[in-house]
Amino acid sequence: MDEARSPAPPAATLRAVYSIWTSDTLRYGDTDRQGHVNNAVFATFCESGRVSFLYDEKLDLRGPGTNFVIVRLELDFRAELLYPGTVDIGTRVLSVGSRSFRLGQAVFKGELCAATAECVMVLVDDATRRSTPLPPQLRAWLEARLAR
Amino acid sequence: MDEARSPAPPAATLRAVYSIWTSDTLRYGDTDRQGHVNNAVFATFCESGRVSFLYDEKLDLRGPGTNFVIVRLELDFRAELLYPGTVDIGTRVLSVGSRSFRLGQAVFKGELCAATAECVMVLVDDATRRSTPLPPQLRAWLEARLAR
Amino acid sequence: MDEARSPAPPAATLRAVYSIWTSDTLRYGDTDRQGHVNNAVFATFCESGRVSFLYDEKLDLRGPGTNFVIVRLELDFRAELLYPGTVDIGTRVLSVGSRSFRLGQAVFKGELCAATAECVMVLVDDATRRSTPLPPQLRAWLEARLAR
Amino acid sequence: MDEARSPAPPAATLRAVYSIWTSDTLRYGDTDRQGHVNNAVFATFCESGRVSFLYDEKLDLRGPGTNFVIVRLELDFRAELLYPGTVDIGTRVLSVGSRSFRLGQAVFKGELCAATAECVMVLVDDATRRSTPLPPQLRAWLEARLAR
Repeated sequence: MDEARSPAPPAATLRAVYSIWTSDTLRYGDTDRQGHVNNAVFATFCESGRVSFLYDEKLDLRGPGTNFVIVRLELDFRAELLYPGTVDIGTRVLSVGSRSFRLGQAVFKGELCAATAECVMVLVDDATRRSTPLPPQLRAWLEARLAR
Repeated sequence: MDEARSPAPPAATLRAVYSIWTSDTLRYGDTDRQGHVNNAVFATFCESGRVSFLYDEKLDLRGPGTNFVIVRLELDFRAELLYPGTVDIGTRVLSVGSRSFRLGQAVFKGELCAATAECVMVLVDDATRRSTPLPPQLRAWLEARLAR
Repeated sequence: MDEARSPAPPAATLRAVYSIWTSDTLRYGDTDRQGHVNNAVFATFCESGRVSFLYDEKLDLRGPGTNFVIVRLELDFRAELLYPGTVDIGTRVLSVGSRSFRLGQAVFKGELCAATAECVMVLVDDATRRSTPLPPQLRAWLEARLAR
Repeated sequence: MDEARSPAPPAATLRAVYSIWTSDTLRYGDTDRQGHVNNAVFATFCESGRVSFLYDEKLDLRGPGTNFVIVRLELDFRAELLYPGTVDIGTRVLSVGSRSFRLGQAVFKGELCAATAECVMVLVDDATRRSTPLPPQLRAWLEARLAR
């Protein structure tokens, strides 16, 4: 399928480039009638990878009264995922701005890289429903994990 | 959230640019603890928009023994979706190659454009699990609907 | 599969016995690798049927600071559901108590009754997270719709 | 909520009565706008518990050209499930017939029993789409695990 795929840095498919990890369990209901895991579930796996640290109560990265919102998701599907098993989701920080940040992610099943993704996240004020500047502790945490 | 969003042609948020339409029903279970429809469900809505014509038995666009596979999805989240209600999913053809094609899509709830998307699709041979040239009837159908 | 199925009143499979209706759209992702709609999605359809009136803002059946919670669900799967299409979900009131009520439901695709269900619902106080007596307007609304 | 709940053997909420175990990971998207895991996901967890052994390729419990189908599910919701975390799903065999069998299940998060369930399963012939007698190896496997 290579001719149809947009160029992505080859490194994105390597486990070694990711520093933040979580895992998820494939479910029978994740499959569709094509016999493999449905494509929308890949967006769920990426979410699992993000939420595991963004909403970690011990890390406490966001300020009170705020929630993270995804504004853009780019997903490159690289291989089929077959039930059963578990997936590992790797995440790295690609850039940090004053009001948004960009993450790189990949979904692995064993050595197989099933998908890579990039997403842009903002922090939204629950009251105004508008984006709000990233608090210092979040910026510091993200910048300490910036992919080189 | 504008500063974080990648540039997209403004036209993508207008109903008038889409020629292929389907609709879907919001489900209570689509919501997440933030109170709105979960981001991964947007990928499902885009899939509904594609599958409605790609697998339409009357149109019969693919050859026997083949299935459509998405290789790249770009999703721009533009507004929250709140339960209940229905969404309309508009699709247009952006380009057609020999072995892949690119679609533009948008998810509307009434006049609200909640998301726009672009995706790259290939046709995969069930036996070899590899991409196969687009059959003439598919190419002709897509080219007749190419966005100008 | 009849020998394995628990007895249920035959009437439960007839559209005519249901007085409250909603509909839902089958999604490609609802299917699983057996080619039909996954069994857990039937629970989602039943939820769609309940939520359509229980949380209807115009009906305003619950008091402030409360939410409906399901405590028991019995689902009889009667036929496969195949994508694509829409389903109609019928609901009737089977009994009303001081702190709980019982609903009967069925999922239809055209004339096919794919499933029947019964569920027990309670109203839970958001603050105490415990069940609370049903308010008069809810009891009156339910009793007016009691299946004879 | 006790008054509304149908009677169930207290033992069903104890980990010790279950002999077959699997686990699943809670997902952010499993939550709904009430802030807890949506009720339909409990049906998915029960499915995870069944499929883990029914479709285990090493056990090979079903004959060729057959698939397991659930004909009845009874779910008792006993406590809220809150994200994040993992759940353990315990399963036991309640009865084995010539063409169907009954399983008991429970969903635990740590020591919390969030739900108990009973289900009736049949084996369906892929060609006829009708139930077929349970093969000897399946009956033997199930009977060896019959709950006393």
